[in-house]
Amino acid sequence: MDIETQNRVISILKILQNEKKAMGSTAIARKIIAHGLYWPERTVRYYLKICDDASFTRKISEKSGRILTDLGREEIASSFVMKKLGKMSSRINALSYEMDFILKKKIGTVIMNISIINKKEFYQNKHHIKNVYKKKLGMGEYLLLPSRADEYPEFNGLPAVLKNSNKIIIGTLCSVTLNGIFMKYKIYIKSVFGGLLEMKNHLPFRFTEIINYDGTSLDPIEMFLKVKMTTMRDYLETGSGKITASFREAPAVAYHEVIKLAKNLDHAGLNGILAIGKPGMPLCGIPVAEENFGLIITGGLNPLAPLIEKNIAVENHALHTLFDFSRLKNYNNIL
Amino acid sequence: MDIETQNRVISILKILQNEKKAMGSTAIARKIIAHGLYWPERTVRYYLKICDDASFTRKISEKSGRILTDLGREEIASSFVMKKLGKMSSRINALSYEMDFILKKKIGTVIMNISIINKKEFYQNKHHIKNVYKKKLGMGEYLLLPSRADEYPEFNGLPAVLKNSNKIIIGTLCSVTLNGIFMKYKIYIKSVFGGLLEMKNHLPFRFTEIINYDGTSLDPIEMFLKVKMTTMRDYLETGSGKITASFREAPAVAYHEVIKLAKNLDHAGLNGILAIGKPGMPLCGIPVAEENFGLIITGGLNPLAPLIEKNIAVENHALHTLFDFSRLKNYNNIL
Repeated sequence: MDIETQNRVISILKILQNEKKAMGSTAIARKIIAHGLYWPERTVRYYLKICDDASFTRKISEKSGRILTDLGREEIASSFVMKKLGKMSSRINALSYEMDFILKKKIGTVIMNISIINKKEFYQNKHHIKNVYKKKLGMGEYLLLPSRADEYPEFNGLPAVLKNSNKIIIGTLCSVTLNGIFMKYKIYIKSVFGGLLEMKNHLPFRFTEIINYDGTSLDPIEMFLKVKMTTMRDYLETGSGKITASFREAPAVAYHEVIKLAKNLDHAGLNGILAIGKPGMPLCGIPVAEENFGLIITGGLNPLAPLIEKNIAVENHALHTLFDFSRLKNYNNIL
Repeated sequence: MDIETQNRVISILKILQNEKKAMGSTAIARKIIAHGLYWPERTVRYYLKICDDASFTRKISEKSGRILTDLGREEIASSFVMKKLGKMSSRINALSYEMDFILKKKIGTVIMNISIINKKEFYQNKHHIKNVYKKKLGMGEYLLLPSRADEYPEFNGLPAVLKNSNKIIIGTLCSVTLNGIFMKYKIYIKSVFGGLLEMKNHLPFRFTEIINYDGTSLDPIEMFLKVKMTTMRDYLETGSGKITASFREAPAVAYHEVIKLAKNLDHAGLNGILAIGKPGMPLCGIPVAEENFGLIITGGLNPLAPLIEKNIAVENHALHTLFDFSRLKNYNNIL
């Protein structure tokens, strides 16, 4: 498959993925036009044939058209890197635009991370997860423990897991949710990097490793957890240890508004801010632009860190999906 | 310890690290001046006292002064992140400047990666390592298998390992060595990103994940290996699979010179170039600046990939040290 073909195939697969239903070539051609491209329907049919041959799509019927296969989903995931270059920062901006949570009323959609774990190991270790929330290193106080997987069509792309009854899905709030909440107040939060934050005596001390969001196709927080660089269990015991966190910048003109909103977030059980710097001043040794101030935000996947450190297999998907906040529960009630 | 203190402590520790010998406060003060700072000797003594108290340094005698402890080495490694931000690209540039290998004569220093592995597991699996070299996915044909660890003072910072007789150290050529070789010909190679390269039918096909060198404190190649994202064994069997590689750019004006040097590198058993693009043209879907052309270079740690994929514990240290090329051996003779 040459690059041009590959590009077109990916465009079609992505449309099928977004629509989450079977589609015919006419409907796909219409969607492609909506994306600012013009392909005659016979071109769409030509590339759909290629998709079928590669088993990326499967024809259900003449009438309802094609659906995306698991192989097709994989193909999207590993598609051209230039579409993924800077993907983390793009995905952060896209999801924080798309969510529609209203802080005052506590209604609307938020951004969720998904973690998959063996059910038995989860129940044996959930007190560790609870402990992280209690020590305020989770993103807010709310999470999701699906009892029946098929209740959650939002978790697309995980069909194999949903059928495996030994596995449980945990949905944690993604800290990018804060970017989305602040956007409602016209405050653009820039996610600068994900890092490994050393805590000392219960306070952020310094970052020891960092990966910039605009230069990576992989989520840094996911990576730091996967290579087991955190020492969350030490933190829980002694108040000192390495956790995941991200560094963000907000405009100095919104400084007082952010301070005020941080208090509201706290009352709403939605806080994840570990530190707020002064305009133009470094925060934990990290310099910020004169017109901005720094924020250190806890990694939404931190509650899983103690389990990962114990070598329990946890499959994480950061920034996985939008989810209705009303279906989340306070950790005190479910852990 | 406040940030200012921490900064000064790190400055002192780094001097002790670079000098690799015990030093008194007078000698350290002189070194600090050479770094463009001026601290009176009593300031140095004050901070040395702090270093002693924190067990970062140890006084050997009044006359010969202090040495760096293992704890001090750790402190340097996890010191302020802003000194490490962009560290990968800075370290790449620093080491490729410092090496002095002369291609024509095959003499001088090159840049080495260090891998530490259980001796028994190494001997049981060395045919896999050999296979990667044979398939030309190693960096060149030369490597190092130290028989007696104390012969290699270059491997500083690894004292615990050197004493453990169950462990073996493998030195592979770091592909940044190529940057250093080209610099001798006035050709600056920019290392853009480290990535996961999908090979198809023995040829580079596309990058599926990338991390930019100027936005990370960790080596991307080391990370991709550690999280087991490679499928080198598939490649060795079928000619298709994911390996580590980096994407670099070189100036278009030097295009013909680079092509010529690539042949010389090949003859010298020092090639690691998997693909060379045309000036201003994308390579494997990665666009390059108009005035440059792209290069895809194999990851120097690729020979260890099959072992890591088999869940054998391999501790990698990319870009670890400069090393005299004459002490390396052709893989055909030692594997």
